Amino acid sequence: MADPALFEFLHTEMVAELWAQDPDPGPGGQKTSLLVLEGMGFRVGQALGERLPRETLAFREELDVLKFLCKDLWVAVFHKQMDSLRTNHQGTYVLQDNSFPLLVRMASGLQYLEEAPKFLAFTCGLLRGTLSTLGVKSLVTASVAALPACKFQVVIQKP
Amino acid sequence: MADPALFEFLHTEMVAELWAQDPDPGPGGQKTSLLVLEGMGFRVGQALGERLPRETLAFREELDVLKFLCKDLWVAVFHKQMDSLRTNHQGTYVLQDNSFPLLVRMASGLQYLEEAPKFLAFTCGLLRGTLSTLGVKSLVTASVAALPACKFQVVIQKP
Repeated sequence: MADPALFEFLHTEMVAELWAQDPDPGPGGQKTSLLVLEGMGFRVGQALGERLPRETLAFREELDVLKFLCKDLWVAVFHKQMDSLRTNHQGTYVLQDNSFPLLVRMASGLQYLEEAPKFLAFTCGLLRGTLSTLGVKSLVTASVAALPACKFQVVIQKP
Repeated sequence: MADPALFEFLHTEMVAELWAQDPDPGPGGQKTSLLVLEGMGFRVGQALGERLPRETLAFREELDVLKFLCKDLWVAVFHKQMDSLRTNHQGTYVLQDNSFPLLVRMASGLQYLEEAPKFLAFTCGLLRGTLSTLGVKSLVTASVAALPACKFQVVIQKP
């Protein structure tokens, strides 16, 4: 069986490598690294979306797709389910993980909050990529109020 | 359970990203990307080496350490065991994988052989890093004669 920590170790190295290339980035440089991570996550999400078993090939409702992310995708990548899923029933969903694995190893404390975005960009892309494979176009952003909890906001883009 | 393809997808993205940053590298540029991948592999290997369960904390012989790589490490990362392990009994070991997962998705054919090194650098580092955690200093190189088989040569550095 795959060691569940392998993905986390590799993710850590990826983030470190992208920041090492540009150790003192201005706002623009940092943004580029975040976009690169998001793009990598998107493509991994697309590939996983094609691979993960689905009970039905076509989901009946948008909410079914989001539940698939919270359960199947999260277990495949993070070995746990998302803690909560809320929606405004108008195409916006908030997925909350109370102990997000990629933040757990970070020291907690307000002073580390500004480091959080680089550990979330890949996963935003992962969600967007998986949704894309499932035929749903979306915008995904993440926010952290108290480490290691975080929220992913998914806004569905209507055609 | 972790999806076993997750590591492969992420590895593919890492390689693609490092080459995208330097799409037409001279010999020097390409060498840098290989070193970066090898370094990432080394640190992931170090971390995994600390994490993987060992039957005995101290291996009695060098050969035990190499068997640990061929079995435990390979299963943790690639979900299979190495196909063969040979040694000259003078500190050089050849580990052969007849169907190395990171090369399987590559099209076969002699014309792709020159692309192989970028898919092997991370794993060379992985072996070197795990050995390092186990207290063994080494040099690890890889060679491919016929895709997707490959050989990793480990030369133990005596203190």
